[in-house]
Amino acid sequence: MNTLRQHLAELERLPVTTYGTDFLLTWDKTDVEIRALALVSECLARMHAEGKPFRVFDSGLAVSIFRDNSTRTRFSFASAANALGLSVADLDEGKSQIAHGETVRETANMISFLAEAIGIRDDMYLGEGNRYMKEVAAAVDEGYREGVLHQRPAVVNLQCDIDHPTQSMADLVHLKDYFGSLENLAGKKIAMTWAYSPSYGKPLSVPQGIIGLMTRFGMQVSLAHPEGYNLIPEVVGLARTASAKSGGRFEVVSSMEEAFRGADVVYPKSWAPYSVMQRRTPLLRRRDSEGLKALEKECLANNAKHKDWECDEAKMKLTKDGKALYMHCLPADITGVSCPQGEVSRDVFDKYRLATYREAGWKPFVIAAMIYLARVKNPVETLKKLTCPAS
Amino acid sequence: MNTLRQHLAELERLPVTTYGTDFLLTWDKTDVEIRALALVSECLARMHAEGKPFRVFDSGLAVSIFRDNSTRTRFSFASAANALGLSVADLDEGKSQIAHGETVRETANMISFLAEAIGIRDDMYLGEGNRYMKEVAAAVDEGYREGVLHQRPAVVNLQCDIDHPTQSMADLVHLKDYFGSLENLAGKKIAMTWAYSPSYGKPLSVPQGIIGLMTRFGMQVSLAHPEGYNLIPEVVGLARTASAKSGGRFEVVSSMEEAFRGADVVYPKSWAPYSVMQRRTPLLRRRDSEGLKALEKECLANNAKHKDWECDEAKMKLTKDGKALYMHCLPADITGVSCPQGEVSRDVFDKYRLATYREAGWKPFVIAAMIYLARVKNPVETLKKLTCPAS
Amino acid sequence: MNTLRQHLAELERLPVTTYGTDFLLTWDKTDVEIRALALVSECLARMHAEGKPFRVFDSGLAVSIFRDNSTRTRFSFASAANALGLSVADLDEGKSQIAHGETVRETANMISFLAEAIGIRDDMYLGEGNRYMKEVAAAVDEGYREGVLHQRPAVVNLQCDIDHPTQSMADLVHLKDYFGSLENLAGKKIAMTWAYSPSYGKPLSVPQGIIGLMTRFGMQVSLAHPEGYNLIPEVVGLARTASAKSGGRFEVVSSMEEAFRGADVVYPKSWAPYSVMQRRTPLLRRRDSEGLKALEKECLANNAKHKDWECDEAKMKLTKDGKALYMHCLPADITGVSCPQGEVSRDVFDKYRLATYREAGWKPFVIAAMIYLARVKNPVETLKKLTCPAS
Repeated sequence: MNTLRQHLAELERLPVTTYGTDFLLTWDKTDVEIRALALVSECLARMHAEGKPFRVFDSGLAVSIFRDNSTRTRFSFASAANALGLSVADLDEGKSQIAHGETVRETANMISFLAEAIGIRDDMYLGEGNRYMKEVAAAVDEGYREGVLHQRPAVVNLQCDIDHPTQSMADLVHLKDYFGSLENLAGKKIAMTWAYSPSYGKPLSVPQGIIGLMTRFGMQVSLAHPEGYNLIPEVVGLARTASAKSGGRFEVVSSMEEAFRGADVVYPKSWAPYSVMQRRTPLLRRRDSEGLKALEKECLANNAKHKDWECDEAKMKLTKDGKALYMHCLPADITGVSCPQGEVSRDVFDKYRLATYREAGWKPFVIAAMIYLARVKNPVETLKKLTCPAS
Repeated sequence: MNTLRQHLAELERLPVTTYGTDFLLTWDKTDVEIRALALVSECLARMHAEGKPFRVFDSGLAVSIFRDNSTRTRFSFASAANALGLSVADLDEGKSQIAHGETVRETANMISFLAEAIGIRDDMYLGEGNRYMKEVAAAVDEGYREGVLHQRPAVVNLQCDIDHPTQSMADLVHLKDYFGSLENLAGKKIAMTWAYSPSYGKPLSVPQGIIGLMTRFGMQVSLAHPEGYNLIPEVVGLARTASAKSGGRFEVVSSMEEAFRGADVVYPKSWAPYSVMQRRTPLLRRRDSEGLKALEKECLANNAKHKDWECDEAKMKLTKDGKALYMHCLPADITGVSCPQGEVSRDVFDKYRLATYREAGWKPFVIAAMIYLARVKNPVETLKKLTCPAS
Repeated sequence: MNTLRQHLAELERLPVTTYGTDFLLTWDKTDVEIRALALVSECLARMHAEGKPFRVFDSGLAVSIFRDNSTRTRFSFASAANALGLSVADLDEGKSQIAHGETVRETANMISFLAEAIGIRDDMYLGEGNRYMKEVAAAVDEGYREGVLHQRPAVVNLQCDIDHPTQSMADLVHLKDYFGSLENLAGKKIAMTWAYSPSYGKPLSVPQGIIGLMTRFGMQVSLAHPEGYNLIPEVVGLARTASAKSGGRFEVVSSMEEAFRGADVVYPKSWAPYSVMQRRTPLLRRRDSEGLKALEKECLANNAKHKDWECDEAKMKLTKDGKALYMHCLPADITGVSCPQGEVSRDVFDKYRLATYREAGWKPFVIAAMIYLARVKNPVETLKKLTCPAS
């Protein structure tokens, strides 16, 4: 890992103007903003390791809204909030509610009188999660503009139907750390591939987040999935565009083996097909449990045709020198451990287990950096003061 | 808004002796105490707007006990606790429990070893909520006196069966802010009226809190409801007495129109009749779900006879210059928005929407001020130090 | 109570090397460690009473994992965390889950990136609770060693299937406070006896914790229960050994009267027989609700044969001068108060009610001391600085 001083020197050369912004989609952010976020995440992690506090708030709430289950992200958010000096207040509305209009607008303001950040996970309904986050952001915009709120809390996407930026940014910093720099990512091949899992309905946001972000750094992104397991076409489109712009490569292939061949990094992970998510959303909305059961049965039967989509030693041998970095957002479905047949074989997982823990370890600092950059007026100066309190 | 310096100067002239007290009912408090609370609330809000922290506790718990659902009050309490330097610890006993005697006494002490404040919402059972709060207060009194507790936490009523002082005080500060001073409230007409809602069982504490408090400042309080939708007679009685003493006026009328006529402020809000609440309490107690369903059906049918009790543009035209301030504790049942037919028409609500948000915005500071005044020995001096750390 | 200065002087003479340890079982700890823990608990309680903060952490999480209901321990843990400067983050996995292997290992690391302490209650399954705690401890050991975690959080047993060290240590400090010193405990007789309760399935950890700890200080420990209401034989064995080593006495008798005779302290409390717990564990595991109901019925019928195992005035007369100290971990089943017939008569409980509250009052400080001793490198020096900031 680079030293704190070097990170800060690099950060000082970036024209960072993120104060007052939200973090909803990585592709809404400029390359400078992504670079700055990575650097601040690394600084905060380094500071934590060295026992240097970065408590920039005297008080204030970090509101969390989890409209789907979460353990890892919940703890990452709580950790980030705590380290910054904020207290978590959870808005528990019941998992499956869909709200719009005045209800969202009013609630967003009612929870924000002393809030500095609002973290939202809303990934179950296609077309809803990101839209809800934008509604909350617009509501606190109005509240701040109209003097209802004394400060404008930053909205942070903790996973929506489209993107999972705290995950993909943690993954990017993990890759940066592994390969030494963002520049070193250029030309490296990453295989983002579907993998078999005996469950259904896993969100599209992780693979979408990965192809949307990694294509921007000149990586050779190979997206692989069985026929019919498509992602949202618009996201695939923007990955393609980003890739062309960054001088990387983007391909969609139909076998795990093809994607793994020569790969420097592999990311095998299950997801539900876009078309299934499209059918699932109206069923969820009208709480049609019979329809949901039938859809689940159909999908699991479909999944079962692709049990060979497992990341095992044989497939790992196809990667660059047989030594690609294995990545996962956790928890992985490990064959013979968490399920009879899953996304990854036991021996492969065991080899990379601690690496995946380290990958996850960036998330609290990425979330802290997102809030930090959105809420601290002079982020670079403030970091310098925090690291060298004497000077 | 008045400046911080002026608020403090005014506060210094008041003989504030609230240390060690609870806040259960506004009518238990002297006019001086109510004035001091309003001033401290305004100071804390001003300080927050100016980025001046008022973290008076180094550590300590703010215990919350919510025996009924709450989002707004929960966040207001969490915000107040956080700004004062306390951590919220929620006692989650299940919503509908009724406890007395040793259970309450013991639990109150067990949660209070490091507690500085206990906020309680208990508004479902007539005759129970306020009584429970008094039991908790007596238990921590004994605990402190007998050396079980090192400090005596302040008990704050976050809504009971009788009063909703954090709401009515927020409303009072909102009116003070709107009209410029408490003195300016004298002679102003406020219409506290029932309104139609397609729900039943809403507590009486908001309208009772309003008539119990606003009658003390010389306001002309007009309480309006359909026949049979009475409030608790004792509370109506004390509003009448307070009104006579303050030189205001208090009347009970039977049409929204009559109450609105010439009003400076209107507060249209649904509630369940006192007689229904009386019948509902034993049903709730013995968990008679059949009986509760039957009562609900009967009440909704009754409510439906009064759909014309809606605050619409036509009725607003009857108010002073057609421009009365509309108030609501939120969320309002808005016709065509949150329900087909409700308490207020869409156009009226939209016009005052931001004003109701600002009204709600006082609540965190009112709760903080309640805890502050009950737990800080030299509240005025301490505020002065907090606002001018240099001097 | 001894003065802070005296406590510190005594503490300075102890060779305390608890940094980096967990607190899982009192019998894993040396006498020096137990003495140091008692002294630090007393210091922290004294400091709290004198308004001296002991906030040793700038930030950090105190993770709680409650796999069984808890109010008192939950608040004690929250209070301890708060006073030390930590924020509680609760891992809510559902009460009755049993997890092992990779799931535990991964989760333990995912929640620990910014954690300083992990408090666990897991007391329902014989053979599981303590084992789970050890797995968590091993996981964070590995995480810290391998650089996944920047710090190694301390694991604290908040009640397992074997021991309840935060309770037994609070009880020990209570006895130390009552009798003046740990030395004064030598020769005192404590009756740890079963008592009737109209419930079943109460854990064995309280009586086991008491006999395992009090036998170490030369006390005459008399364990009494009806035939068949045995504790785990291994724990009874180690109590016997500890007793022999400390020069005390340990006996198992079969009547409350016999245990009470000449006792200085009585601790009458219900528990489920070891053999019942053994039968219950597999039923719970396979969620056999019919089997559980049948077992409950059988046990309650068995319990009902021993309704005379009630701590009443007549039995209290048998104790030393009729004035033994009554102890209970609360809540007690009080005859005529919380149940028709219970562990203790109303008049006996009323006499000692405040004493049991004071007993419980040590728990937040015991938990704080456990975390403090495990996470602060120079615990004695740091305490001295905290108490005399000027010097």
